[in-house]
Amino acid sequence: MAKARERLPKRIYQSRVRQLRKALLRLQMDVKSAPFKVLLIIAGPEGAGRGSLLNTFAEWLDPRGVETFSYHTPTDEEKSHPHEWRFWRSLPGIGRIGLYAGSWYTETLREEARTERARKHVVEEAERIRDFEQLLARGGTLILKVWLHLSKEAQGCRLRTLSAEPLTAWRVTEEDWHHHRIYDRLDKTAELIRSKTNRPGARWTSISAEDERRRDLDVGRLLLTRFRQQQRKMARLQAFAAVPAPVSLRPAGRRRLQTLPLDQELSEQDYAALREKWLGRLSLAVRAAFAAGRAIVIVFEGWDAAGKGGAIRRLTSAIDPRDYCVISVAKPNPEEKHAHYLWRFWRDVPRDGRMAVFDRSWYGRVLVERVEGFCREDEWRRAYGEINGFERHLADHGTIVLKYWLHISHAEQLRRFREREITPHKRHKMTAEDWRNRRQRGAYEVAVGDMIALTHRPQAPWHLVPADNKRYARLEILRSASKQIEATLER
Amino acid sequence: MAKARERLPKRIYQSRVRQLRKALLRLQMDVKSAPFKVLLIIAGPEGAGRGSLLNTFAEWLDPRGVETFSYHTPTDEEKSHPHEWRFWRSLPGIGRIGLYAGSWYTETLREEARTERARKHVVEEAERIRDFEQLLARGGTLILKVWLHLSKEAQGCRLRTLSAEPLTAWRVTEEDWHHHRIYDRLDKTAELIRSKTNRPGARWTSISAEDERRRDLDVGRLLLTRFRQQQRKMARLQAFAAVPAPVSLRPAGRRRLQTLPLDQELSEQDYAALREKWLGRLSLAVRAAFAAGRAIVIVFEGWDAAGKGGAIRRLTSAIDPRDYCVISVAKPNPEEKHAHYLWRFWRDVPRDGRMAVFDRSWYGRVLVERVEGFCREDEWRRAYGEINGFERHLADHGTIVLKYWLHISHAEQLRRFREREITPHKRHKMTAEDWRNRRQRGAYEVAVGDMIALTHRPQAPWHLVPADNKRYARLEILRSASKQIEATLER
Repeated sequence: MAKARERLPKRIYQSRVRQLRKALLRLQMDVKSAPFKVLLIIAGPEGAGRGSLLNTFAEWLDPRGVETFSYHTPTDEEKSHPHEWRFWRSLPGIGRIGLYAGSWYTETLREEARTERARKHVVEEAERIRDFEQLLARGGTLILKVWLHLSKEAQGCRLRTLSAEPLTAWRVTEEDWHHHRIYDRLDKTAELIRSKTNRPGARWTSISAEDERRRDLDVGRLLLTRFRQQQRKMARLQAFAAVPAPVSLRPAGRRRLQTLPLDQELSEQDYAALREKWLGRLSLAVRAAFAAGRAIVIVFEGWDAAGKGGAIRRLTSAIDPRDYCVISVAKPNPEEKHAHYLWRFWRDVPRDGRMAVFDRSWYGRVLVERVEGFCREDEWRRAYGEINGFERHLADHGTIVLKYWLHISHAEQLRRFREREITPHKRHKMTAEDWRNRRQRGAYEVAVGDMIALTHRPQAPWHLVPADNKRYARLEILRSASKQIEATLER
Repeated sequence: MAKARERLPKRIYQSRVRQLRKALLRLQMDVKSAPFKVLLIIAGPEGAGRGSLLNTFAEWLDPRGVETFSYHTPTDEEKSHPHEWRFWRSLPGIGRIGLYAGSWYTETLREEARTERARKHVVEEAERIRDFEQLLARGGTLILKVWLHLSKEAQGCRLRTLSAEPLTAWRVTEEDWHHHRIYDRLDKTAELIRSKTNRPGARWTSISAEDERRRDLDVGRLLLTRFRQQQRKMARLQAFAAVPAPVSLRPAGRRRLQTLPLDQELSEQDYAALREKWLGRLSLAVRAAFAAGRAIVIVFEGWDAAGKGGAIRRLTSAIDPRDYCVISVAKPNPEEKHAHYLWRFWRDVPRDGRMAVFDRSWYGRVLVERVEGFCREDEWRRAYGEINGFERHLADHGTIVLKYWLHISHAEQLRRFREREITPHKRHKMTAEDWRNRRQRGAYEVAVGDMIALTHRPQAPWHLVPADNKRYARLEILRSASKQIEATLER
């Protein structure tokens, strides 16, 4: 058996715990006002004491500032959503520390990876986790990952001691012994996973679990140090004021927008007939998609007064009200503001066989937030890739993603604004903000152009809809939605 | 074919719509600051236009103040929770109007109830719904239920017209025709359900669906009238100031509390041995319960400093961290404050095979809210029955409910308060509120006594735990939890 380091004497331990607890409580006060979330992930082999460590932290910390999360094998509700959905659902609230036993690593860490194929699967899972953590870390979340190290000898010794004592024998299960026998293989998998997921902002720290007292103190100190580092880092970042930069990253996108013809004509009569035709076709396409177990996400973006609401109501009239919901995206509430900007949209991702229609969406990040300087330049520049990644997750799961930009001319917008102002039941739609946005048309055109050029992807294409003629626009949406859904199902 | 009333001319309709929309927008402003939620439930036979009515309302109302809900057949996640869980999950947020197509009635309305047995089942479901609605209505929620009336003749006429026109034929499904054929039977079921669920605060209103325009206007006006009535009613209720009444409803409960012996002794050594023994037994009992598909709910209530946190940590150390979560109940946040007091607890009800431990609970309604006058007397008096009903829902579903009151003497509490104040890492636990609560011991004893006497039920019994000796209390909890779980499984 390996010679263990001498155990930390109880008296010294207790005096250090007192200091540590004071510091941790101060930290919790600071977390409440910190503009970031803290995730503490504890992983390690059986017997390393993940549970007892989390219990100790539950005792040291003020429980009102802590949330504990864990994962079982996925439920059918979880299975009928994209893989990452369950992780997004389990992030701590504002000003709270999330404690995770195993977290998103639990299942992958149990794989033995004996064959090349199994190894490849582990690597894929690890890369998924890495991408998810990178997204959070870049968004300012502090992710601490602790690997509790315990040698095979020490593990065996611990299991034997517990088993020998009648009073504690119940703590050791058959599965524990099995994992002990295959210790080396599991250890290898764990090493592989750690190396693949050890990235800036989400580093692994290995801590010895042989002495419980040192282990708990080490994890506590790690939390303190990293939190203070993150605080300084966030303060530095906040110091850079956001400067709106109305310079096109992809001028082609803006040109496409500016050259879109807007002079379509369509009589009331032709519209009525064609609308019923395409509503019928859309209804069939949607039912076929649901029958095939597909979910549908439809994004509506467009200028103020471009007619998003009306278009959504026409479109949804073809669908069973129990099968869809419309999500009107307003300004984020305080909780959402402190979370990753994609967080609130993950919550509304539809399950298989359902549809979610977004009246404005995650594209706010690269539109209003970019133009108004609500986020930093590095943040909105990064968002194009993050959004493509998000939509790829949806598409990979089988969700059909439709995106519409409703385009109206500057003159038509003015006409509609004025009409709204004189119609009593429409007046509430007009705010000073609408007029302010209107004056920023140029800056918004740059942003819209970049958005279209940088996030137009085969699995989630943009449809530019000429919308000066409302009837034409509504029809165009019904038509292209039907066709895109049909085409996806034929693939 | 029945002679339909003359259709409302378009011009008159449009002018009335303009007035109505103005009034509805004013109503929505008021809903935002109203201390109650509004639920609008639309039900009726095929062809009555539930979908188109909701679409019209979506157009008339400001969508940011509206949420739409609907129910499918339950998912496995929903099935593994008590029946009412899915309804509690789908209530609108503060200041919002919830629109429901069918809502909790959908499934029951589809039953034909041809046999006596089927009829009995429909009645049972209707009574469940009635109880749920009564709970909400008494809590101040405004529930409007509209039955769109359409005769069999008018329904047939509508289906034929749609089918005859190639452009609209897709709107009529085989199921619609089936429901048309069994119109009379379905109508009878619907009548039965309406009569069973037509209660104060949740009345049905029958509105003719033969003319779409009149139908939409009628529902709009109903919403306006009822909302103003509810506003006046709530204002009257608010006018009665809450008066804390420290008078026992059931003096026996208080006597039981006051005569509880608190002088138990237990050496550190005996405790250590017995703890491991009972932890082991509890661990087995919990695993057996989970294996049998049962969920477990444990409630911890007790005096400030009675040792709830420590007891919870000892108890949970016997359980796989992935199988339980601890819910620390703090003051309600603004959203929770405006909701029914049971709402936030429904969200945390565990699914089958899991455990939820509540550090304080729904009993706050009859403890702190009663004593401090945070709710009216009629509210806390009603709560005993409501809580028994809630726990019965849990027990009926198979959930095992354990409740602990941790009891310490006035003198022991003082000793612990003083100790907390001189221990740096415990000081944050002490607030001015603790000292204030302490001075109210008498009033709280009355409330605790009533709680114990009025909510001690075979399916959810109270355990009074003498807790002046912390070790004894922790052991007592392990012991009685093991025994109650074992006994429930043997039944």
